[in-house]
Amino acid sequence: MLNKNIETFIGCTAGFDEADIVLYGAPFDSTTSYRPGARFGPSAIRHESYGIETYSPYQDRDLEDISVFDSGDVELCIGDASIALSQLEERAKIIADAGKLPFLLGGEHLVTLAPVRVLAKNYPELHIIHFDAHADLRDDYLGAKLSHACVLRRCHDILGDGRIHQFGIRSGERAEFAFAREHTDFHPLKLDGLCETVEKLASEKLPVYLTVDLDVLDPSCFPGTGTPEAGGVSFDELRSALELICKKCRIVGLDLVELAPNLDQSGISTALACKLVRELLCCITNK
Amino acid sequence: MLNKNIETFIGCTAGFDEADIVLYGAPFDSTTSYRPGARFGPSAIRHESYGIETYSPYQDRDLEDISVFDSGDVELCIGDASIALSQLEERAKIIADAGKLPFLLGGEHLVTLAPVRVLAKNYPELHIIHFDAHADLRDDYLGAKLSHACVLRRCHDILGDGRIHQFGIRSGERAEFAFAREHTDFHPLKLDGLCETVEKLASEKLPVYLTVDLDVLDPSCFPGTGTPEAGGVSFDELRSALELICKKCRIVGLDLVELAPNLDQSGISTALACKLVRELLCCITNK
Amino acid sequence: MLNKNIETFIGCTAGFDEADIVLYGAPFDSTTSYRPGARFGPSAIRHESYGIETYSPYQDRDLEDISVFDSGDVELCIGDASIALSQLEERAKIIADAGKLPFLLGGEHLVTLAPVRVLAKNYPELHIIHFDAHADLRDDYLGAKLSHACVLRRCHDILGDGRIHQFGIRSGERAEFAFAREHTDFHPLKLDGLCETVEKLASEKLPVYLTVDLDVLDPSCFPGTGTPEAGGVSFDELRSALELICKKCRIVGLDLVELAPNLDQSGISTALACKLVRELLCCITNK
Amino acid sequence: MLNKNIETFIGCTAGFDEADIVLYGAPFDSTTSYRPGARFGPSAIRHESYGIETYSPYQDRDLEDISVFDSGDVELCIGDASIALSQLEERAKIIADAGKLPFLLGGEHLVTLAPVRVLAKNYPELHIIHFDAHADLRDDYLGAKLSHACVLRRCHDILGDGRIHQFGIRSGERAEFAFAREHTDFHPLKLDGLCETVEKLASEKLPVYLTVDLDVLDPSCFPGTGTPEAGGVSFDELRSALELICKKCRIVGLDLVELAPNLDQSGISTALACKLVRELLCCITNK
Amino acid sequence: MLNKNIETFIGCTAGFDEADIVLYGAPFDSTTSYRPGARFGPSAIRHESYGIETYSPYQDRDLEDISVFDSGDVELCIGDASIALSQLEERAKIIADAGKLPFLLGGEHLVTLAPVRVLAKNYPELHIIHFDAHADLRDDYLGAKLSHACVLRRCHDILGDGRIHQFGIRSGERAEFAFAREHTDFHPLKLDGLCETVEKLASEKLPVYLTVDLDVLDPSCFPGTGTPEAGGVSFDELRSALELICKKCRIVGLDLVELAPNLDQSGISTALACKLVRELLCCITNK
Amino acid sequence: MLNKNIETFIGCTAGFDEADIVLYGAPFDSTTSYRPGARFGPSAIRHESYGIETYSPYQDRDLEDISVFDSGDVELCIGDASIALSQLEERAKIIADAGKLPFLLGGEHLVTLAPVRVLAKNYPELHIIHFDAHADLRDDYLGAKLSHACVLRRCHDILGDGRIHQFGIRSGERAEFAFAREHTDFHPLKLDGLCETVEKLASEKLPVYLTVDLDVLDPSCFPGTGTPEAGGVSFDELRSALELICKKCRIVGLDLVELAPNLDQSGISTALACKLVRELLCCITNK
Repeated sequence: MLNKNIETFIGCTAGFDEADIVLYGAPFDSTTSYRPGARFGPSAIRHESYGIETYSPYQDRDLEDISVFDSGDVELCIGDASIALSQLEERAKIIADAGKLPFLLGGEHLVTLAPVRVLAKNYPELHIIHFDAHADLRDDYLGAKLSHACVLRRCHDILGDGRIHQFGIRSGERAEFAFAREHTDFHPLKLDGLCETVEKLASEKLPVYLTVDLDVLDPSCFPGTGTPEAGGVSFDELRSALELICKKCRIVGLDLVELAPNLDQSGISTALACKLVRELLCCITNK
Repeated sequence: MLNKNIETFIGCTAGFDEADIVLYGAPFDSTTSYRPGARFGPSAIRHESYGIETYSPYQDRDLEDISVFDSGDVELCIGDASIALSQLEERAKIIADAGKLPFLLGGEHLVTLAPVRVLAKNYPELHIIHFDAHADLRDDYLGAKLSHACVLRRCHDILGDGRIHQFGIRSGERAEFAFAREHTDFHPLKLDGLCETVEKLASEKLPVYLTVDLDVLDPSCFPGTGTPEAGGVSFDELRSALELICKKCRIVGLDLVELAPNLDQSGISTALACKLVRELLCCITNK
Repeated sequence: MLNKNIETFIGCTAGFDEADIVLYGAPFDSTTSYRPGARFGPSAIRHESYGIETYSPYQDRDLEDISVFDSGDVELCIGDASIALSQLEERAKIIADAGKLPFLLGGEHLVTLAPVRVLAKNYPELHIIHFDAHADLRDDYLGAKLSHACVLRRCHDILGDGRIHQFGIRSGERAEFAFAREHTDFHPLKLDGLCETVEKLASEKLPVYLTVDLDVLDPSCFPGTGTPEAGGVSFDELRSALELICKKCRIVGLDLVELAPNLDQSGISTALACKLVRELLCCITNK
Repeated sequence: MLNKNIETFIGCTAGFDEADIVLYGAPFDSTTSYRPGARFGPSAIRHESYGIETYSPYQDRDLEDISVFDSGDVELCIGDASIALSQLEERAKIIADAGKLPFLLGGEHLVTLAPVRVLAKNYPELHIIHFDAHADLRDDYLGAKLSHACVLRRCHDILGDGRIHQFGIRSGERAEFAFAREHTDFHPLKLDGLCETVEKLASEKLPVYLTVDLDVLDPSCFPGTGTPEAGGVSFDELRSALELICKKCRIVGLDLVELAPNLDQSGISTALACKLVRELLCCITNK
Repeated sequence: MLNKNIETFIGCTAGFDEADIVLYGAPFDSTTSYRPGARFGPSAIRHESYGIETYSPYQDRDLEDISVFDSGDVELCIGDASIALSQLEERAKIIADAGKLPFLLGGEHLVTLAPVRVLAKNYPELHIIHFDAHADLRDDYLGAKLSHACVLRRCHDILGDGRIHQFGIRSGERAEFAFAREHTDFHPLKLDGLCETVEKLASEKLPVYLTVDLDVLDPSCFPGTGTPEAGGVSFDELRSALELICKKCRIVGLDLVELAPNLDQSGISTALACKLVRELLCCITNK
Repeated sequence: MLNKNIETFIGCTAGFDEADIVLYGAPFDSTTSYRPGARFGPSAIRHESYGIETYSPYQDRDLEDISVFDSGDVELCIGDASIALSQLEERAKIIADAGKLPFLLGGEHLVTLAPVRVLAKNYPELHIIHFDAHADLRDDYLGAKLSHACVLRRCHDILGDGRIHQFGIRSGERAEFAFAREHTDFHPLKLDGLCETVEKLASEKLPVYLTVDLDVLDPSCFPGTGTPEAGGVSFDELRSALELICKKCRIVGLDLVELAPNLDQSGISTALACKLVRELLCCITNK
């Protein structure tokens, strides 16, 4: 696999073969119902990554110490979610089948379904840790089953009860909250209970897919997202949480979604997302 | 009363007669001395309310359970504050006299004077709970008595000492702070002492007008306001405070003012205001 | 048909039954491949229409003299173009079958396909006059047949050669330009030849659908569109052209598409679009 | 008169006594009904003037050759148009009575009434040349007589028929256009007939007040104004027109109004306004 | 020469060896005195080029027909103009010495000096065709000799009288205009006289460096530049002029400078610049 | 020293001779490597200071009680850091030599080097308290020794080990962090250990230069800076820290740098900076 005509994420200088982790992007937001722009997320993250350092003072680790290949964006069929997901699955499969960790940069949250489909086959016991402001548990949205608002419900279709661990959720229909209380490991509003969940998943060495909808963050530090929800967690809280998970759990795939850089002209949202990518890359490989 | 040609706040589907609460808007900022835009507040709140859910996970309540009529904006005389206030009083009076709770969406803070004039007649013992970054206690501003900078002073003219309970104030002239310390129940900078104030008002069942200048919030989570003042309260703090007040006190009228959506292109300020409207609607009727 | 919870276009105060023209909106941009935002077009046009006058000094006509019903936006399935088009066809059919002129506010250009499908049945001799910067004649775009980039090609599938009259086209693939030269009445770059085309269509009283992609305008006067193309026509040129067509031809349906108000914070694009809606409403009924 | 704490317009280094022309600003937009921001006009023009040169290649003249005093902004009562106008009249009177030419930087168009009141007393035969997109001839606006939408009507109250020469008008109520056709020297849409008007005023050496509402310009070159109206004149057209007038007519006062710099983040509107101030200063003194 | 980690301009897929033209970027604006941002020009042009087509309907030519290598940006010493110019010269020399046409994407105008230094050695009879709003003929600017405001003066130091042909200039100090009239082939304000100049240069087959400061365009169609100057030329005028020059003259190097994409959030400036790059690439090779 | 043509910071009405503190501005960002705009900091702070009050409720102090002269910006050579620093040193020296406290408004961080050079001569025992997100300890940046990224390293060249006290640092190369741990009093990430440092400096009455890079603040409350770094301190934390330092330590000079107002269109960053200037002015003189 070759990445031509791509400005890669800072410090991701490895070739595919030598890489432990492979970045891939999903410039897609066709099902976004409110304010679009998540399609611009992956390229913004790559371009603005040159504004941060490769060194993490939090972990005393440097991107130069690890091997990451940035495979660029998948060219997706705009306007047809079903085809787009297949195209994305193909890339995820190539990465996973080569024994490398697939790290997806969204795009809207629906894109998570592609690697989950792939990895649920490879890891029948797959669990998902889900950070989000929204439950994303609708059965359909305005008639569409493949929608950002339904993505965790689609994951539940595949994985079943008790496999999805949700944190930070503070928005949804009454029915979604009822569904969550019954079918998922549900931690609404903030991150309470994370340590216990991590402890349990880690002790059993269960394979974990980590999906981070960046709107779990408070809009004050992350305004650049389609549906900002006041009352979220701080950068420090999220960073610590992710470091804990990545160092303790057996991560088999992960994503960072819902940055809409066009909605934040100050650029602080994109800069924060870049820093989280660096922190995730550093701590996944640091155990 | 009929609301034609109005996009109403989400979930506010009741007719006037059946409604317990009536929303009305004041698209007015003629006396704004620094950066205008609060005139766009009411329509922005209505339009963007479709980006939030009707369900409050904080209260496990849904707008669908309650009866609210959105009467739209009052057509106000731009450029003459005195006439504009009379026009606004007229609407407030119709609502109050029909035994419904008037809920005003500003506009600049001067508009608070209209419902206070009306309700002070109906409730001679009226108290005001006031959240704000600014004291708004000047006797005049550049010669004008009817100014956003004087609105609580005008309320004090009507209600007298000890009736106004101010929280979060962190900006004003030295003379305003001196006036506040002498004549109002003054809690500068943050929300310290709120529980005691609420307890007292609640135990005596005193009628309370609640006025929330959104710039009481920290500019990090609410940049979209004419005169942002660093050092404010967080969304969680304000939301809890309002829930406490609405559940305990006898609210006879309320407002949310000083959103200037044009000053925040990320839209997080408007989204936050929408959520506060939902939370207020849910908790006022939940006791 | 009732329009509830809608802020209608200025001066459009008629009920459905009495109206000669019916406005309907398509808040859709799921197939937009470059910069989204056309979904916000219809509501922006309605909201900002209160910034213009109902009187046209160009035509000495007033919206108050004519009967227009604004039926609001069609609720569309986000992310599935095929379903969305069906939903839109339904509305167009109701309007057309009631003998009223359907006037569509886009949205991206794909939405034009819905009324064309309806009207091609009602008027087998239907012609299309098409203003645009882009040919929109691809057979597919990244695998999708239903795409903004293919919409006139889909119309050609229905209507066949010689029925589509294209003006202002200054962007496209080489293959699209070749196709146009062979299969459509093609007037690239500017509006040359418009008078002759109009004369011919008028003299034979042929039914005409008028579709105006606003990016036919020069980006200097209309920056708020997804894919701005330098070298377009001026407002005066477009306004005159539209007045000529509407006064001479037998218009059986029309649309104005591709305003993306989020891309122009100055608001001049939305204001211009509002004015064109007014001018079109005035001149269609003025013959 | 002393200008303390003022960043003056570039090249305006004269003291009051030696100056031929005196600049004064009116940071006022309280009656603006649509989008405010003209209050920021005068300070933006001064601040950004350092981005242009003092030399005019159009006239081969330099601001260094002429004597202008910038007296800064008048401190105006926000929210009360009547008081604000009196405050502005006072400044205009001081300037005019000292035999200097008062050049007002707006602010919304209502401010023009102040110097016209002053100069109509000094020059009973005063004429007004008026460039604008809007007729501004309403008798009242939402009940207010002192409104930007009525300012030329108020001038007509003072001067009577035939004294006001209007150019570029392309927006207004039907009634305003009817009034204009009867009572003013009316040149709608563009600048046709300007030469004749100038010739006539010049030949009789009539005193002329020149008021330039910058929205007479096409929004493409001047997006930064509250109510942009497509179809305006170009910079070259307006610049030539103003040079013609200033060189031929007996100008006794002038203004440039309705720049709202906050509505144009590219800054081209403010830069254009700065250049027009320079051109006006150069050509008024060049005859 | 290899371009790694670069998103190349659309259609520029050739390798260095096979290419006729080589693009190189100068992300530099350290001497910009007014509003910075030109440093973002090259990457914006590359990134946004995917929003235009490779086919030019003006010339019926396609980028796919020609061989261009995009060598990416030169890494420049920020804050030291002298070092930065040397670094840029090095790249220009490699390209020119390989017999390829160097096409520079700025950056501020100072960067033009680098290829001119290189090419003046290779072509002692070098002429410059210069499109700009500003004369750029100061001898120094605030003490700096190496400044965007002096760049053509520095070129004159090298080439001497009569070798620089300036068009569109409408801003400068009186002294610069005087210098231009004496020492350059000076065509102020618009493009008058271009045909004659081209004819002369072409007939003698003189080597020509073409430098296009994009602010020669009217700010209405190109707001995204540091110092916008009202009264410029239109896109159609500039495009025709460039086509004429490139088809007739012996171009030995060229640049396009002073796009500051951060100053135009609508993106029309960047889109226009992309289109000009395409047009230039197509017509240089089309003779 | 006279400040002509300057809009001074609110309440700074003293003349040079009577002043205890003298403000001076450095509109410079030529070495900014990422996103420029700090050059606009000083004038933005002055202009927007009229949106805050002169009274500090935190300290119960008013700017009217103290004597500050605002000497305006130093005219700096754009594009040559070495010359610019000399120009700035000259101003700092005049202020310091007159026995007044020099208070510098940046500008990028490199400007700090100028007063440090001056004061290190006057106070051989000079210490620096440094708040920043970035270590700024590189020995060179892309070959330049005089760069914002190297400024504290240059200070270290002058002062040596143990004299620089760094707080809040959360970004840098691995080598910078290593250097800091060895050579400075290093408190990364937050403000831990400040009290001890202050206590020590105060007890020995050591002369202290205080430099505040505003990006030490969290981007949520201060988005308007070139290189925002998530995870910073809050306004309340910084304000308290500065009050502590100014009241206890012997401050001999200070600065506030890296506000880039163009990067935050909401204006909250500039407003916060204004408030910090007021708080610093109030507490420096209040011991």
